[in-house]
Formats: sequence, structure tokens, C-alpha cells
Amino acid sequence: MKQIFEVKDKEIIQNLIDEVDFGVLAICKENIPYSVPLNFVFLDDNIYFHGAKKGKKVDIFTSNPKASFCVVKEYSFIPSYFSTDEGKACPATQFFKSVICSGEIKIVENFDEKTKALQCLMKKMQKEGGYVPLSQKEVYEKMINATLVYKLVISDISCKFKFGQNFSDERFTRVVEHLRARGNKMDKLTIEEMVRK
Amino acid sequence: MKQIFEVKDKEIIQNLIDEVDFGVLAICKENIPYSVPLNFVFLDDNIYFHGAKKGKKVDIFTSNPKASFCVVKEYSFIPSYFSTDEGKACPATQFFKSVICSGEIKIVENFDEKTKALQCLMKKMQKEGGYVPLSQKEVYEKMINATLVYKLVISDISCKFKFGQNFSDERFTRVVEHLRARGNKMDKLTIEEMVRK
Repeated sequence: MKQIFEVKDKEIIQNLIDEVDFGVLAICKENIPYSVPLNFVFLDDNIYFHGAKKGKKVDIFTSNPKASFCVVKEYSFIPSYFSTDEGKACPATQFFKSVICSGEIKIVENFDEKTKALQCLMKKMQKEGGYVPLSQKEVYEKMINATLVYKLVISDISCKFKFGQNFSDERFTRVVEHLRARGNKMDKLTIEEMVRK
Repeated sequence: MKQIFEVKDKEIIQNLIDEVDFGVLAICKENIPYSVPLNFVFLDDNIYFHGAKKGKKVDIFTSNPKASFCVVKEYSFIPSYFSTDEGKACPATQFFKSVICSGEIKIVENFDEKTKALQCLMKKMQKEGGYVPLSQKEVYEKMINATLVYKLVISDISCKFKFGQNFSDERFTRVVEHLRARGNKMDKLTIEEMVRK
């Protein structure tokens, strides 16, 4: 059985992407990779970013638009002794959810699309509101024109969940019991994911 | 003034890398990047990883060893209204620490180096112990031989802290007050970083 389970359900993938604030964008030029952490928002099947109009990232992706983008949500680390009394280190493992998207970066030139992306990013990051809507052109036009908005047009998406799906029933139960006993906030979330069918 | 501050102190960088459990490795082949989240350990100025002997990652980095590795530690998101009463969305910002390392991936063939790297990874992830030390060759030899250990030999490292260092005194004080009032765990850590000199 595989250790890590591939997830195909689009809604589950979208929820994961929406829950995570930072991802890492990987780009490369002349076969030298560059990785950079970014806030982002998933919208109309693209990943949108924003930033300054000049810099290392922009140099690279205007030269080679191919990109990979990765988000990871960390769950409990499972110490080796949660799985076994034998004392071996090997069963130690980390539970997580991850999404890796590949595709091409396109700079967004259209003003309305830029506005929508920035509005969605604000909605994601500042859920409680408390700001003038980005649609008020007279307030934001200058700022939006001065900001670079770019998107990863996704051609392939891969989502993985690792929650002990390959464990024997005995090991699985034992790990859940240990997580319950340790009982921190992340352990509770991890148990929810483990027992979800 | 720059928005994001470059950190040069090696001890600060090492501490940050040691505190974070996941990083994203970016590699590429034929100018197509690939990013993947990994547990890792920083040891003797290299970043060590482990995994299966075959797979997409291994295919790529044996073809092109150039790599970039990124870790990010998220601090508070600063809502726009923490900075201003004007109602504009623009001052919304995210505080963080990040490290980006670039270099080349080398597969570790030496048994003792593999053992040391795996031992250090266990020390990082399972601080409380509770397992037979990896140095007990009779227990672990087969497992260690079956595991791929590889390292990023770092040629360049860049560390950035963003905690409002470019804010005016007035805005800085206002943001600290708002963080104190909201007062969640991350806000408390964020204030510590902001006022650290």
C-alpha cells in the first residue's frame, strides 16, 4: 500500500489551498532553480500573486514562464514510540497535506482582472473586512497600476494527504490513542483527518 | 527604506532553520521546475534530506543537481486597519521570516555521514528521544542502506525578516498596540520580534 495518498477531489484541494497563507513558487532560468515564499489566492483555477514590478522573480519568469508552486499544511509529527514498543526510530513520521501545481506564469495586464485578484486576496487574508472595496477605482487605480499581478496558469495539480493510511489497524489505533493522550490542538486536528472517510 | 530586511547573522539563520519542520526544495530539468515539501535538518552547513531511492525528485536532481531550498516561518498578518484609519486596503501586510538557500544536491553515499544526518533529523523532530540511537549499526544498518540520504551543499544563503522595520514610529506603535489588543499566541511572538533590536 502507498504511504501517501493522492487526493483527486477538486473541492478538497481548493479548501486546502484556501486554508494556507504561504506557498513557495519555484521558477528557473538556464536550469538554475529559484524558490520564494509568497502569499497567494486561488481564483478561477489559477493561483494569483502580487508584488513589485521589478526583481529577481520577474527577471526569471519573464525569461522562462514554467513554474511549480507548492503549499503544505503541517499536521502532527508522529514520534516513533506512538507506533511501536520496539524502540526503533524508523516508524517516526510526519503527517501533512500538500498540493503541488505546475504550469506557466502569466503577467496580468487587464485592470479588472488585477482588481479581482487583489480583492480576493484581501478577502482571504483579511476576512473581517474593514477596508474600502478594491472595486472603488477612484481610491485604488494608481496603486493597482503600480502593482504587478501575475498568475500561475495551472496545467497539472497533485494533492497528497499523509495520515497513516498505510498503517495496520493495530498501529493506526495505537497512534490515535497516543495523539488523543498528548492532545494538543494539532493532535486533535490530526485525529479528525485520520478518522475522516 | 527597504520593506524587508536581510539578515546576515549566521546564528540567527541557523536558529530559524532549526525551528521550522518543513521546507520546499525546488529543482528543475530541461528548464521545467519542480517543487516538493520536505522535512530536513541543517548540519555542517548543509541541508540534509532523506527519502526513497527512486522517484521524480531523484530523476530530476541526478540529471541537474542545481537546487533552491526555501523555509518560511509565518508571523501575524497585519490587517490594513492596524496601520491606518483611512480605510484603504493597501497597508495590509504579512510578517514573516524566510531563508532561501541555493546550491547543488549531492547524494550521500558514506554510511557514517548518512547515519549522522538521520540521527540529527531524529533529534530535531523527536526531541524527547525514546528510540535506540541510530549509531547502533546492528539495529539500523539495513534500514540506512535502504534509505536515500541527500544534501543541499549551500553556495548561497539569503535570510529575510519582515516585521514593519520600514514603518514610521507612529504606524509601528499603532500596529504593536493592535497586536497587543488582539493578543493571540502568534501576535505575542510577532511583538517580540518587532521590538527585538
